[in-house]
Amino acid sequence: MDIREQAQKMKLCAPELAATPVEVRNDALARIAAGLQAHKDEVFAANAQDLAAARDASIAQTIQKRLRYDEGKMAESLAQLQGLQGLADPIGRVLLRRELDEGLTLTRVSCPIGVIGVIFEARPDALVQVASLCIKSGNCAILKGGKETANSNRVLFSIVHEAAVAAGLPADCLALAESHADIDELLGCDEYVDLLIPRGSNAFVRYIMDHTKISVMGHSAGICHVYVDKDADQEMAARIVVDAKTQYPAVCNAAETLLVHRDIAAEFLPRVQAALAQKKARLRGTEEVIAATQADGVEPAVEPMGDDEFGTEYGDYIMSSKVVADVREAVAHINRWGSHHTDCIVTTNQQTADYFMRMVDSAGVYHNCSTRFADGFRYGFGAEVGISTGKLHARGPVGLEGLETYKYRLEGHGQLVDDYATGRSQFHFRDL
Amino acid sequence: MDIREQAQKMKLCAPELAATPVEVRNDALARIAAGLQAHKDEVFAANAQDLAAARDASIAQTIQKRLRYDEGKMAESLAQLQGLQGLADPIGRVLLRRELDEGLTLTRVSCPIGVIGVIFEARPDALVQVASLCIKSGNCAILKGGKETANSNRVLFSIVHEAAVAAGLPADCLALAESHADIDELLGCDEYVDLLIPRGSNAFVRYIMDHTKISVMGHSAGICHVYVDKDADQEMAARIVVDAKTQYPAVCNAAETLLVHRDIAAEFLPRVQAALAQKKARLRGTEEVIAATQADGVEPAVEPMGDDEFGTEYGDYIMSSKVVADVREAVAHINRWGSHHTDCIVTTNQQTADYFMRMVDSAGVYHNCSTRFADGFRYGFGAEVGISTGKLHARGPVGLEGLETYKYRLEGHGQLVDDYATGRSQFHFRDL
Repeated sequence: MDIREQAQKMKLCAPELAATPVEVRNDALARIAAGLQAHKDEVFAANAQDLAAARDASIAQTIQKRLRYDEGKMAESLAQLQGLQGLADPIGRVLLRRELDEGLTLTRVSCPIGVIGVIFEARPDALVQVASLCIKSGNCAILKGGKETANSNRVLFSIVHEAAVAAGLPADCLALAESHADIDELLGCDEYVDLLIPRGSNAFVRYIMDHTKISVMGHSAGICHVYVDKDADQEMAARIVVDAKTQYPAVCNAAETLLVHRDIAAEFLPRVQAALAQKKARLRGTEEVIAATQADGVEPAVEPMGDDEFGTEYGDYIMSSKVVADVREAVAHINRWGSHHTDCIVTTNQQTADYFMRMVDSAGVYHNCSTRFADGFRYGFGAEVGISTGKLHARGPVGLEGLETYKYRLEGHGQLVDDYATGRSQFHFRDL
Repeated sequence: MDIREQAQKMKLCAPELAATPVEVRNDALARIAAGLQAHKDEVFAANAQDLAAARDASIAQTIQKRLRYDEGKMAESLAQLQGLQGLADPIGRVLLRRELDEGLTLTRVSCPIGVIGVIFEARPDALVQVASLCIKSGNCAILKGGKETANSNRVLFSIVHEAAVAAGLPADCLALAESHADIDELLGCDEYVDLLIPRGSNAFVRYIMDHTKISVMGHSAGICHVYVDKDADQEMAARIVVDAKTQYPAVCNAAETLLVHRDIAAEFLPRVQAALAQKKARLRGTEEVIAATQADGVEPAVEPMGDDEFGTEYGDYIMSSKVVADVREAVAHINRWGSHHTDCIVTTNQQTADYFMRMVDSAGVYHNCSTRFADGFRYGFGAEVGISTGKLHARGPVGLEGLETYKYRLEGHGQLVDDYATGRSQFHFRDL
């Protein structure tokens, strides 16, 4: 069946899935866990095929590592499934309840978005995670994983789908897209698909955003900053910079740019450069940074960079740096060059921190802690479907709540607008 | 100055506006009210020019009426400004506060979206209303009104802008776009504009949605339904249908289609047809409707219609109708043909009503009351910027809350992710 037909069928079954009790959705999650354990050998055999193909194709070692689905990864999947079952039902939460007039009651109640397309990286555990989030949140989902894990995906999807149907969920609520052409077809299904969540490289996410009328939730770049203020605890600042840059440089919440207040540049920059060097991370900087870090007659420890290079996302052990006059210049730089993801100020001055956090236009504004905390699990959301740098609907790490919308229920006894328009009746608006 | 430059400047001043205290924003609203009263003669003179031009151009009487800004309309503007000042500050609301670990506190706090482009119909009062909403919500706004009220808009905008600056808001926070070419330029400003709110004809809103990468909030169609169930109080049902269709047929929350349960079709359809006829509203219907309403040997009172015409939004005293087998067929019809705006069931059977309200995928699902209640003022939001049929961010009538997003503030004392990744520290997640 083609993706378009599939999406059309899903649109029809979406209200049915949305109306399932949470016990049924939780049962589906429990059955997925049982299915994974029962079909362990099949899963690992399929994954071995993917790994062998990756070796034959000489795919980079770091990527090969991500393709692997072993006992450890399965244990993580099982733990996530367990955790998800424990979370409160995101459907049917009463967000507002108001009596408009005697016997005319308005209720805003959360409900699933409907049909979601998730395009995720080649990681078999991502399939289980994404499918489980969609089931718990009551959303139909078209899942498209990386082609490098096609065999693993197929086996995992059939376990997930079988579990969902056995629990009583509609058979059309989940579909697996396999070919790359499916993606382009999916992008054209704006009549049936309510939301797309692309994960993967920035170029890929940008491509999706540019080629569909469907709403897209995600982030196409992660250019995070650490600004070290003149009133910073410099020892703390150096630790935060090192953590933000080197704890896991490939991810979107790793810091890419260091901004340092001019008053402490000569003292702090050599110190942080040395701390980064210990973790094999290099600093690039403007002329003023180089001047501040270069000892007489020695080769500069900091590589030169141009003023127009601050939009670079390295995803590696390299960091841009710049000296700024004050917190105002830092904020202006971040709002100009950043990706509105997560930005941090290190300072002991609460007033300066407040200014920074109010003025920086990002999903996360941090004071005295690492940008690497920007993550749904670390925020205590239990599960994360992605991080959004858009400002509408959901911003920052997106958990189950971001997969819900709401509807207004209005319950009356024959009330007509004409009676209110002509003054025969009057609203009294009383929140219940 | 062109729109692009203007938008770029706005993007820079948006955080400044967002950081203004509510007292300053309320003072701007108070000064707008004072300005309107002080410059009353100027406003009315400019409006008289617009009205004269409209007469010369033989613009339809109903539209000419909307162009008028007189003492009555000004009184409405003043009342709205007063009401808006009384509403709580939508900025800085704490939406979540959680201690992730000792001394590491996460706060989700509401903040303005940033830069909004509002393109509204030729109604001078709309300019005052939209500008006031943007000021109260802390959003910069590019305002483009209908060309038929260009003179009124110019005078009203200068009153609004002067008031804003006098209150201490940044001068670049509001701009007036005047030419039609400005709209196309605005559509290309995705780097600077965070949200577009188009109001006006469906074709126009659809055009905007199809020609920009900027997020669009609005509705391109309002095809609302009333389903009269077999267990309906038929007297109540007829009153609701008449109100939903005829109380103000030109607006998006007026009902376009009547669905009637087969068991009561022969009894109810002639009754509602007669009730509609009293208000000079005509019924169109499928063959089964015609059979149910036609007396022997008399011309049919209901006009025939094809099965493929249920996507019609009349905006007039005409209504489509169809006989359905049960609530399931009614829901399927609504989800297939509706615009996900507002749909109503009339029934005394609570179980049937619950099924309908759960399964209909619309912003508003109503039980025993008119679809015409779908409106921000009637929901008690105090002010409305529009109605959204999209599912993301804001759904249904959108008040001040829909003009806000949020950011996450994380405040620590030097916490590093590495300590949590290696198990030296542990999250404890405690909501405060």
